[in-house]
Amino acid sequence: MNKPTDKNLTLSIDIGGTNTAFGIIDAEGNILCRGSHPTTGHNSFNDYIKSMRSTVEASLTEAGIDYDRLAAIGVGAPCLNCDTGVIEGAVNLPWPSPLPLTQSLTETFSLPAVGDNDANAAALGEMCFGAVKGLDNFIMITLGTGVGSAIICDGHLLRGHRGLAGELGHTLIRRGNDARQCNCGRRGCLDAYVSAGGVVNTARELLAESDRPSALRSVETLHAKAIAQAAEAGDELAQEVFRLTGEILGEACADFVAISSPQAFVFFGGVANAFHLFEQTLRSSFNRNLLWVYEGQTEFIKSTLPLADSALLGAAASARVRLGL
Amino acid sequence: MNKPTDKNLTLSIDIGGTNTAFGIIDAEGNILCRGSHPTTGHNSFNDYIKSMRSTVEASLTEAGIDYDRLAAIGVGAPCLNCDTGVIEGAVNLPWPSPLPLTQSLTETFSLPAVGDNDANAAALGEMCFGAVKGLDNFIMITLGTGVGSAIICDGHLLRGHRGLAGELGHTLIRRGNDARQCNCGRRGCLDAYVSAGGVVNTARELLAESDRPSALRSVETLHAKAIAQAAEAGDELAQEVFRLTGEILGEACADFVAISSPQAFVFFGGVANAFHLFEQTLRSSFNRNLLWVYEGQTEFIKSTLPLADSALLGAAASARVRLGL
Repeated sequence: MNKPTDKNLTLSIDIGGTNTAFGIIDAEGNILCRGSHPTTGHNSFNDYIKSMRSTVEASLTEAGIDYDRLAAIGVGAPCLNCDTGVIEGAVNLPWPSPLPLTQSLTETFSLPAVGDNDANAAALGEMCFGAVKGLDNFIMITLGTGVGSAIICDGHLLRGHRGLAGELGHTLIRRGNDARQCNCGRRGCLDAYVSAGGVVNTARELLAESDRPSALRSVETLHAKAIAQAAEAGDELAQEVFRLTGEILGEACADFVAISSPQAFVFFGGVANAFHLFEQTLRSSFNRNLLWVYEGQTEFIKSTLPLADSALLGAAASARVRLGL
Repeated sequence: MNKPTDKNLTLSIDIGGTNTAFGIIDAEGNILCRGSHPTTGHNSFNDYIKSMRSTVEASLTEAGIDYDRLAAIGVGAPCLNCDTGVIEGAVNLPWPSPLPLTQSLTETFSLPAVGDNDANAAALGEMCFGAVKGLDNFIMITLGTGVGSAIICDGHLLRGHRGLAGELGHTLIRRGNDARQCNCGRRGCLDAYVSAGGVVNTARELLAESDRPSALRSVETLHAKAIAQAAEAGDELAQEVFRLTGEILGEACADFVAISSPQAFVFFGGVANAFHLFEQTLRSSFNRNLLWVYEGQTEFIKSTLPLADSALLGAAASARVRLGL
């Protein structure tokens, strides 16, 4: 028989368009077992959730973990409203919206379930298990297809009205007609400069404005990873792309400090894998633009959560924090 | 004999360079009695605090309020560190720093005491007693000699590392060498455009760039209040000064929304008295610059706390919130 203190594991679920990954995670962020379940091929959303329970139970049995040790479910999914736990308008999932995800999980698994968006889950993952464990004040910036952010202030994740706090990728770092077009329809958002697409556009601009030699000229489809590889191989133009990325990110962070007086910025996502390529200009640009009262209190850290497991660890952290485990 | 529920009054203290104002404030924000005590003319800081207790007690007796009904002290003072309750480097006070203000008050009055800065106290005052009573998500912007701000998100006032959160007046709204010089030493801060001095500089620029007629040309020393009066009297150039002020404030607020997803912005301070002169361009500029996900959820409100009592009400609110009264 389990003692009550044994009931402290989280079932983390990461729903993708074709596959659903899951893991059983303990209070220290160890993934005790993991598995997957197809997202497609079920008669209904209900069948998908019900058969997921069977798959999870089989994994638990194989790992020798008692179902009763599960305390909660944390889940991530496309277009998940973290206030209501409902999926709304997810075009990559095989069922029509709205889908009452957390409610269905709770009914099927008899466990409390909460969901969160990527940036929030990543920030809570870092706070519970990662680079800033125990830190009360930091800002997480996710540099991927888009630029997301999550602000942890005084130990709380800011959620705001309708859960829409922390969209710092869509604050303007440049103004006027010369500012770069952003996917959101406006001009000059940070997102347009330091997302994966922003990095590509910086490269395109540098390639267009001179005929400096660069290995990037022979790359068929430019993407951020190829630019990072060229920079690492010594390509000067590619290196300048990341220097400029750090420059503009430093300017932005010098403003963001005035929001919540963070002790650290943590960078996560595809572009953050090239952190070493922009860290130096990020720091110098930040220091040059900083209000004096904030001097000497802020660190810049690359996320230490393994990218492949970050969604599961983030969902587990989110469940732990929100359900007070 | 008083019932325990009667012990719910706050002693609010507002320390200025020559005079200290105080008030006894109930849970609804009513000022039951008020008084003042000279800041100067005492042999020591300790004497000042000790004689203040006698002055407060005399006021209480006159108002027929039992000392035992006091539950806490909220205090505002120049250069007060709200984390430690210590005054540091206040050149306008007659004693050398550091001054352990809240500790001295607690020892002398036998009551818990907390202090807060102007913008924080004003925000908590609005939340407890004012225009946004009960609202969980709003941003307070104080438009005075400087531009201060306080962010209330999910019902919490952001304090951040070393209590330095919420300095939105020193985020950059313009970049580059053309941006206006700010008193903080940098260029382009919001403060340089929408503080009282910023409004004066906007007027100076408009006066210099053409020879349009304006009553402001004959004003000896331009200040924000004189410009507001001219605008109210129909002076077109003065009206344009406030339209431009609203324009740039709207741009800034459209960015600030992405921080904490507020339901309202509340404006407070000297320049906010001219709210009716810039409200319209503030709203239209905000709407024009807004990310679509935030559309239709944000109000713009002028503070309803009476300016003369705002320091006392803010200090009372701060004590109530921080001490959980």
